[in-house]
Amino acid sequence: MENNRINTLLNELEQLKPNLYGKDFLLTWENSVDNLKAVMIVAEIMQELHRMKKPFKIFDYGLAISIFRDNSTRTRFSYASAVNALGLGLSELDEVKSQIAHGETVRETANMISFLAEAIGIRDDMYPGEGHTYMKEVADAVTGGFEEGVLAQRPTVVNLQCDLDHPTQSLSDMLKLKDYFGGFENLKGKKIAMSWAYSPSYGKPLSVPQGVINLMTRFGMEVVLAHPTGYDLLPDTLTTADSFAKASGGSFRMTNSMQDAFAGADIVYPKSWAPMAVMQERTKLLKGGNTAALRELEKHCLSENANHTDWECTEDMMKLTKGGNALYEHCLPADITDVSCAQGEVAKSVFERYRMHTYQEAGYKPFVISSMIFNSKIQDAYSKLKSFL
Amino acid sequence: MENNRINTLLNELEQLKPNLYGKDFLLTWENSVDNLKAVMIVAEIMQELHRMKKPFKIFDYGLAISIFRDNSTRTRFSYASAVNALGLGLSELDEVKSQIAHGETVRETANMISFLAEAIGIRDDMYPGEGHTYMKEVADAVTGGFEEGVLAQRPTVVNLQCDLDHPTQSLSDMLKLKDYFGGFENLKGKKIAMSWAYSPSYGKPLSVPQGVINLMTRFGMEVVLAHPTGYDLLPDTLTTADSFAKASGGSFRMTNSMQDAFAGADIVYPKSWAPMAVMQERTKLLKGGNTAALRELEKHCLSENANHTDWECTEDMMKLTKGGNALYEHCLPADITDVSCAQGEVAKSVFERYRMHTYQEAGYKPFVISSMIFNSKIQDAYSKLKSFL
Amino acid sequence: MENNRINTLLNELEQLKPNLYGKDFLLTWENSVDNLKAVMIVAEIMQELHRMKKPFKIFDYGLAISIFRDNSTRTRFSYASAVNALGLGLSELDEVKSQIAHGETVRETANMISFLAEAIGIRDDMYPGEGHTYMKEVADAVTGGFEEGVLAQRPTVVNLQCDLDHPTQSLSDMLKLKDYFGGFENLKGKKIAMSWAYSPSYGKPLSVPQGVINLMTRFGMEVVLAHPTGYDLLPDTLTTADSFAKASGGSFRMTNSMQDAFAGADIVYPKSWAPMAVMQERTKLLKGGNTAALRELEKHCLSENANHTDWECTEDMMKLTKGGNALYEHCLPADITDVSCAQGEVAKSVFERYRMHTYQEAGYKPFVISSMIFNSKIQDAYSKLKSFL
Repeated sequence: MENNRINTLLNELEQLKPNLYGKDFLLTWENSVDNLKAVMIVAEIMQELHRMKKPFKIFDYGLAISIFRDNSTRTRFSYASAVNALGLGLSELDEVKSQIAHGETVRETANMISFLAEAIGIRDDMYPGEGHTYMKEVADAVTGGFEEGVLAQRPTVVNLQCDLDHPTQSLSDMLKLKDYFGGFENLKGKKIAMSWAYSPSYGKPLSVPQGVINLMTRFGMEVVLAHPTGYDLLPDTLTTADSFAKASGGSFRMTNSMQDAFAGADIVYPKSWAPMAVMQERTKLLKGGNTAALRELEKHCLSENANHTDWECTEDMMKLTKGGNALYEHCLPADITDVSCAQGEVAKSVFERYRMHTYQEAGYKPFVISSMIFNSKIQDAYSKLKSFL
Repeated sequence: MENNRINTLLNELEQLKPNLYGKDFLLTWENSVDNLKAVMIVAEIMQELHRMKKPFKIFDYGLAISIFRDNSTRTRFSYASAVNALGLGLSELDEVKSQIAHGETVRETANMISFLAEAIGIRDDMYPGEGHTYMKEVADAVTGGFEEGVLAQRPTVVNLQCDLDHPTQSLSDMLKLKDYFGGFENLKGKKIAMSWAYSPSYGKPLSVPQGVINLMTRFGMEVVLAHPTGYDLLPDTLTTADSFAKASGGSFRMTNSMQDAFAGADIVYPKSWAPMAVMQERTKLLKGGNTAALRELEKHCLSENANHTDWECTEDMMKLTKGGNALYEHCLPADITDVSCAQGEVAKSVFERYRMHTYQEAGYKPFVISSMIFNSKIQDAYSKLKSFL
Repeated sequence: MENNRINTLLNELEQLKPNLYGKDFLLTWENSVDNLKAVMIVAEIMQELHRMKKPFKIFDYGLAISIFRDNSTRTRFSYASAVNALGLGLSELDEVKSQIAHGETVRETANMISFLAEAIGIRDDMYPGEGHTYMKEVADAVTGGFEEGVLAQRPTVVNLQCDLDHPTQSLSDMLKLKDYFGGFENLKGKKIAMSWAYSPSYGKPLSVPQGVINLMTRFGMEVVLAHPTGYDLLPDTLTTADSFAKASGGSFRMTNSMQDAFAGADIVYPKSWAPMAVMQERTKLLKGGNTAALRELEKHCLSENANHTDWECTEDMMKLTKGGNALYEHCLPADITDVSCAQGEVAKSVFERYRMHTYQEAGYKPFVISSMIFNSKIQDAYSKLKSFL
C-alpha cells in the first residue's frame, strides 16, 4: 500500500519536464509549473521514504551552510533535518562570530566558506530590497568561484525566506492543499482568501502573502488578497500574481474586506504583516541607526494596527466560508487570541480545530528543502528516487 | 580477552527483562531495577565496542535535538558524543536564537523541530517544580504529534538533568561503583555517604544528591544522606529513597554530621547544593524579575554557607572512612580548595588522589546516554549489540 | 589525466619518511621537512580526490572539537569542512556556554570533552605567550587521560593559529607557491617579501609573518622580512628563521624598507600586524581589565600606524618586483584601499588582479587540516590514500 503511494508519485514525477538541475531555488515565479510540481512531488516521495524508514542520502560528505539573518526555530530545524537526510553536515554562519562585519565582501566570504559546501540556505527577510539581492550576490559569487576553479562544486543556493518570496513555505502550504483536496487538478477553481489579520506585533515580513498569491495563482485557483487600506504588498508581486492567474485560468483580486475574502472560500490564510511603506521606512531608519525614530515608528504602527482588531479569524468569520468549514492555513506561529496574546490573528477554538492540519502543513518543509537541493544535484531524479526503494 | 568482557556483559544483559522499548528516560525511580541494569550494561558494552573500535551506529540519518536551559560543558559534549556514535546529527535548540520567547507553545515547538528527530535531550535543572514538568510537556507533545500522524517517528526524550533527578549522572556514578567493586551484587551492604559540602558558590541544583540516594538504595546499599540543618532535599525524594532501601534490603538514613556519614563509609560523595527553600524562593524571584531581592538572597545564602566551611572532604575526614580509603565520587567540576577556590568541597590532595577515578566516572556518561536512546529504539538490544561484534 | 596527477603526488609521498603518526600538529618548526611535505602532499591528494568526487572518510563516528578564542569565518569553515570529510561530527566548545570560566581546569575540561573525540582544533592567537602554551596544556591533558585509560583514543591537537605560528595558513601559502612555480624544488632561490603593510585596524596577531618566515626558509627561499621600526616579531622566531635559511641553502634578512623587500621579489606578502611590544602591553591590560588604558593604547597604536600609510602594496610598489608581476599572497581578509577601507594594505587594482590566486591559496586550508589529522591517525598514509581511488 505504501508502495502504491510512492509509485503513484513516481508516475506523476515521470510526466514532468523540470529544469532544476544545477539551479538555485530563489523564487517560485522564476520557475515553470513543472519545476514547482517536481519540487513538491519529490518532497512527497521523500516524506514517504522517511515513513518507510528508507534513507535517501545522496552525499558521502560535504557541508550545508545556513545563513540566518533573523531568528527562526522551525526553518532552522527544517533545514537541519533536510540536509542531514541528504548526508550533509550543517555549518551555520553566525554573523556575530564571523568576521563579516570586518570588511569581508559577500563575494569573498561566500567562496571562503564553500570549498566543500553543497548547499547554502539563506533567510534574510526583514528589509525590502535586501534579501533577494543578497541571495543573488551569494549565488553570483559561488558561480564565479566555480567557473574560476576555486570551488570544485557549486553549492546550491536555497531561499529560506527573503523580502520577496518564501518558497519553502508556500510550497508546503500547497502540498497541504494537494493532500487535502486530492491532487493539483482538484485545486482549479478553489477559492483561497489570503487575508491580513490583526496582531499585536510589528514588522512581520511580506514574503508569506506575496509567496502565496504568486504560487496559488499558478494552479488555477481563485485567489483573493484582503487587507485594510495601507497594508499593501510590493507592487511587482501583485502584477505577477495577476498575470499568473490569467495564464492558469484562475483569478486574482484584491479587497479591503476580510468578510468579502472569506465568503465562500475553500481555504483561508489569515496572517498579519507590516505595511510595505512601514517596512521601507524601518529599513531606512535601521540603517541610519535612528533608534528614537524607530521606537516612534513602532508605536505609530502598533496604534495603526489597533484600528483593525476586527480582522480576526473568528468562528463567525469562518461561518462565511464554504460550508462554514474552509481549510485554515498558517505558516506558524500564529498569534492566537487568549493563547499567545490577548487578541490576535485567530480565535482559539478555530486554531484548535485546525491545529493538526497546520502541523502537517509545516511538516512538508524539511522535505521541500531536501527536494530543492536534490533536484539541483541529481539530473535524473526519477531513477535516483526509485533506487532508494 | 576483550571479547570475554563483552561476552560476560552480553550474558548479564540476556538475564534481564527490561521494558525500555519506545520509552523516554526521565527518572530512574520510574524504572524497574532490570531497566536500570539494562541501561548500564548496554552502556558498558558500548564503551567496550568503542575501545575495540567497533561502531554501534543504528541510524542512517536523523536529528538528535538538545535543549540546554543551563550552561554545561560535559553534559553537552556527552550528548554530542552519544548521538554522533548512534548516527544522528546534533541540533541544539538555542532559545535565544529561536522564537520560543515569542509566543510559541511548548507543544507546537516540540513538534515543529521533530519531523526528523529521533531523540530530544533536555537539561532544565534550576527551578524546583519546573524541569521535570517541562520534560513531560515535551514528551506529551511528541506523543500527540506521533499519534496524529504529524511525526513519522516519536523522538525519545532523555533527561540530561532536571529539578528532580540526574539519571545520566547517577547511572555513571553507579557504573563506576560496579567496576570498582566488581559487580552489582558486590554493592550490597556497601556504605555510601552522600554528603553536602561547602562551596563558595550559590544555587547548585538538588538533582545530584536526589538522584544518588534514589539510585543507590535500589541496589541494597547503606545510603547515608548528610547535610547541615536547612539544606533539605525535596521531601518526596526522601520518601522514595526510604522505600527503595527497604525493598532492596539496604538502608537509608539522614544525619547532620559529615563525620557520622563518613565513618566506615566505602564510598563518599561530598558535593554542595543549595537549600531547597532557597531554590524555591529564588525561582519565585527570578520569575518576578526581582533582581534586588535576588542579590539579597544570594548574599544571605553565601553567608549561610559560610557557617559550614568545615563540611569539607579533607584528609582527616577521609581517615574516618573504611580503611581510610573510601572511594571518592563527584559529578565534576568539584570546588577544590586551593585549586578552583580558596576553600571548597574537597582538599586538593584528596581530589588529586582520586582524579582519574572521577574522570572514569564521567567517562560513562556518553555511553549511558547512547544506551538510553538505543534501548528506546531497539527492541532486541542483545541481538543488535551482538551484531556489532 | 586526473589519475596522472594523483599518481604523481602519490609517488612524491612515497619518497618521504615522515614521522607524523600519533602526533599533534602545533608548529611547523617542530617538524622535519619531510613531515611538512607529507602534510602538504596529502592535502593535495585529498583536494584531487574531492575534485574526482571520491570520498576519503576514515572515521565511522567520533567528534572533532573546535575551540575558537577569536572570531573567525574561514578557519571555522575550513575546520568544519576538513573534519566532515574525514567522517567526524563537529562540536564547538563555546566558552560562553560552557563552564570553563567557573573553575574548571584545562586538564579536566580537555578530558571531559574528549571521550569520543578524535581531533581538537584550537585557535588562540591574541596573547603573546598564551596560545601555544594553552595548546600544549590541552595536548598534555589528553595524553594523560589516554595513558591512564580514561580516553580510549587520544585526540590529535591541531593548531588553527596561535601566538607563535599559523601552520594551516603557511602550509596553504606554500602549496599555492608549489602549484604556481611547479614544485618544491623550483622554490629554491625564489625571493619572497614578507612585508608589514598599513591597516586602519589594530591588534592583528603576529603568527602569519612568523609562520611564513619560518616555513619558506625551510625550502631554500630568499626570505626578506620588512617592517617599520618598532613592528618587531617575537625574537625567537627570527633566530629560528635565520638558522632554517642557513640549513636549507636559502637566506633570511630583515629590512625597514618595503621597496627594498619588493625589489626583484618573486612573491610578495604584504600584511599588517601589531608591534610585539603593543601585543604584550595589551595582554597585560586585558588581563587587568584596564579598559581606559586599553583605549589609550589603541589610540596610540592607530596613530603610530598612521605614520606608515606609505606601506601599501600599490601598482608602483608592484613594479619593483621581478618583471613587475610577482605573485601576491595574503591570508585574507585583506584591507583593500577603497574597498574595505579608505586606505589599507593593498591597492584595489592589485588585489583584483590576484583575487582568484588568493582564493586558491585559501582553498588548500580545509585539506591541510584534514591532512594533519589523517597523518596523525593513519600510519601508512600512502596505502590508505591509494585505497580511495
